[in-house]
Amino acid sequence: MNNAVYFQSGGPTSVINSSFYGVIKACKESNKIDNLYGSLYGIDGLLKDNLVLIDKDINEYQELTNMNGAILGTCRKCLSNDEELKTIVNTLNKYSIKCVFVNGGNDSMDTCNKMNIYFKENNIDCVAVGIPKTIDNDLELTDHCPGFGSNVKYVVRSLMEIFLDINSYDKGRVTIVEVMGRETGWLTASSICAKLFNLGPDLIYVPEVAFDIEKFLSDCKRIYDSKKKVLVVVAEALKDKDGNYISINQSLDSFGHIQLGSVSFELAKLVKERLNINTRNIEFSLTQRSASHIISTVDKNEAIEVGSLAVKFALENKRGMVGIIRDSDSPYKVHYDLFPIDKIANKIKYLPKKFINNEGNYINDSFIDYCLPFIDKEEIEIKSGHLFI
Amino acid sequence: MNNAVYFQSGGPTSVINSSFYGVIKACKESNKIDNLYGSLYGIDGLLKDNLVLIDKDINEYQELTNMNGAILGTCRKCLSNDEELKTIVNTLNKYSIKCVFVNGGNDSMDTCNKMNIYFKENNIDCVAVGIPKTIDNDLELTDHCPGFGSNVKYVVRSLMEIFLDINSYDKGRVTIVEVMGRETGWLTASSICAKLFNLGPDLIYVPEVAFDIEKFLSDCKRIYDSKKKVLVVVAEALKDKDGNYISINQSLDSFGHIQLGSVSFELAKLVKERLNINTRNIEFSLTQRSASHIISTVDKNEAIEVGSLAVKFALENKRGMVGIIRDSDSPYKVHYDLFPIDKIANKIKYLPKKFINNEGNYINDSFIDYCLPFIDKEEIEIKSGHLFI
Repeated sequence: MNNAVYFQSGGPTSVINSSFYGVIKACKESNKIDNLYGSLYGIDGLLKDNLVLIDKDINEYQELTNMNGAILGTCRKCLSNDEELKTIVNTLNKYSIKCVFVNGGNDSMDTCNKMNIYFKENNIDCVAVGIPKTIDNDLELTDHCPGFGSNVKYVVRSLMEIFLDINSYDKGRVTIVEVMGRETGWLTASSICAKLFNLGPDLIYVPEVAFDIEKFLSDCKRIYDSKKKVLVVVAEALKDKDGNYISINQSLDSFGHIQLGSVSFELAKLVKERLNINTRNIEFSLTQRSASHIISTVDKNEAIEVGSLAVKFALENKRGMVGIIRDSDSPYKVHYDLFPIDKIANKIKYLPKKFINNEGNYINDSFIDYCLPFIDKEEIEIKSGHLFI
Repeated sequence: MNNAVYFQSGGPTSVINSSFYGVIKACKESNKIDNLYGSLYGIDGLLKDNLVLIDKDINEYQELTNMNGAILGTCRKCLSNDEELKTIVNTLNKYSIKCVFVNGGNDSMDTCNKMNIYFKENNIDCVAVGIPKTIDNDLELTDHCPGFGSNVKYVVRSLMEIFLDINSYDKGRVTIVEVMGRETGWLTASSICAKLFNLGPDLIYVPEVAFDIEKFLSDCKRIYDSKKKVLVVVAEALKDKDGNYISINQSLDSFGHIQLGSVSFELAKLVKERLNINTRNIEFSLTQRSASHIISTVDKNEAIEVGSLAVKFALENKRGMVGIIRDSDSPYKVHYDLFPIDKIANKIKYLPKKFINNEGNYINDSFIDYCLPFIDKEEIEIKSGHLFI
């Protein structure tokens, strides 16, 4: 028997199930995998012998490509000792599993890496192949990560819509939109694409630049004084020059509890207090990574493809993470390859400085070229030629 | 000359510009309106003689039906004295305007009503006709309001997506989603439709029921103890039995400033503090009313229709607000009529008690029938048959 197992790991995206679909499809088409199993709740399923057999006809799984969330369940667990690896190998042996597919981000690639090292050191006939997945787009070596593109499409279109809403008022406010990204500014920076439709933000702050509150306030004041409204996009992970998150409100409430908060909430409060300008903060929160109704076509197809290719590489007995290499922006062309996981695991790829303006409060147009293939431009376009105001 | 003016008032929706399109179309087709003007920033344009001529070919305005926001600008101004009405009449005379189209909610219908009273009392040859618009769906007499349906579609689909995201985790949290609605629970209640796809919320709280914090906490605890995750939908306008908004946090921070907040934020903090369960709060905020990428087909068509009919009624020299009468749920059938504005202006139509369960923490299935025509069911469906977990 030559069986395989697939699991999902880390935060869900709107196309992680498309990668699952790609794995199922390739397994069925290869005729070299007898049984494909799904491990429930990520690596936990292998630790607790909690697998499901993926045995229906491929057409039955088509709907996965329209469904956000981690359909097999996920977890954020990191492997910490050999005992856990032994337990996992016991499960793999029990089910005659020779291929493990790990669909996740940089923490998950650490899991994948540790499994491969353990397999090799202990002469276990099994390969683990990584399938990239993260809205954060922060995996090394691959040009970009499945999940990112759909989130970009959501961010760009939603920002355009917010622009039109706040533009409806004569005297506006400072509107602060908060975009996800655990450490990096890739997603936040993608908001620059709204500029293509003349519905872009005024200011963009990414965590790759130390956040200076006084500079931020003076930026807001300058634009408000001239336009009477300001649209700001901020990354959830903004930090000050000492490396402290802006989102952590150190003040305690009357019960002595730490106040919950978010960076857009804190900054909106600050603008109101310091500049006496009305504010609104909008967190895209889970809706951005869950927005399966606005999945990017390129993102979905690539998510399926990296899943399928993971099966191909595993059957060639190769170890690594499937990655995407961009051949050209326009026309958009990519090819795929297998990358060494030890160069990806636990590492973070930051937004390159070349994409950030000198002042550190905006994104350069060159980043639009990077994002453009993902946003289905014709579909999300709003022809704003008839703006009367 | 028989000219007309149209203006937008109150909060934008994703189909208010569709009503504008309907007005333009009917004016052009009637051949009885020489010139149509748009008043910029609502009634302010008439007060300040700030009008634009809408004189392009109708095809040039087609894009309005895909564009959220109040494209002519809006304001929340209420007319407070006869001086203002005199100023408005001066503007109307200057432009030979005989018909005024007011596109807005209950405050805006007050403006419309006051204009009609003043016109009649002063023998001014002009009629004002109201065109309903509000995501809140709280206008009297009309079965529902354009703007509501598209927001419902957004709420239902987004909630399904959030369900799939939070369901990905083994041990979850209490997730509290906050939906707009200035005084009423129509939109919040519409989240019940997600149940059609087996992706519905656990608890729903509308402002028509006095909010009891202890009951809320025990509801959350009961569900968390059995399911390890809770999906709650709350209306932004929740009030306690004394009529105080839950969203207003009375506590001051260390600088003595009032803390900003929202009901979902306050409730999430409370669950964390009192039940020691992790929480997440998600505010749909402006994105829900701006979501022109997921406009409801029925809502858009009805928005166009009420705009067109306003022109028809005005040309018949009739005064009132165009409203929608529902003839049947399935098949969905409506017709339109003109309603007396004095019975709508400044009044609020609350969600009827029959739609709320006895415990006051959920919505009855009968409300699904009311909302179903708006959600484009086939389009937003997620076939959740393959939930493995």
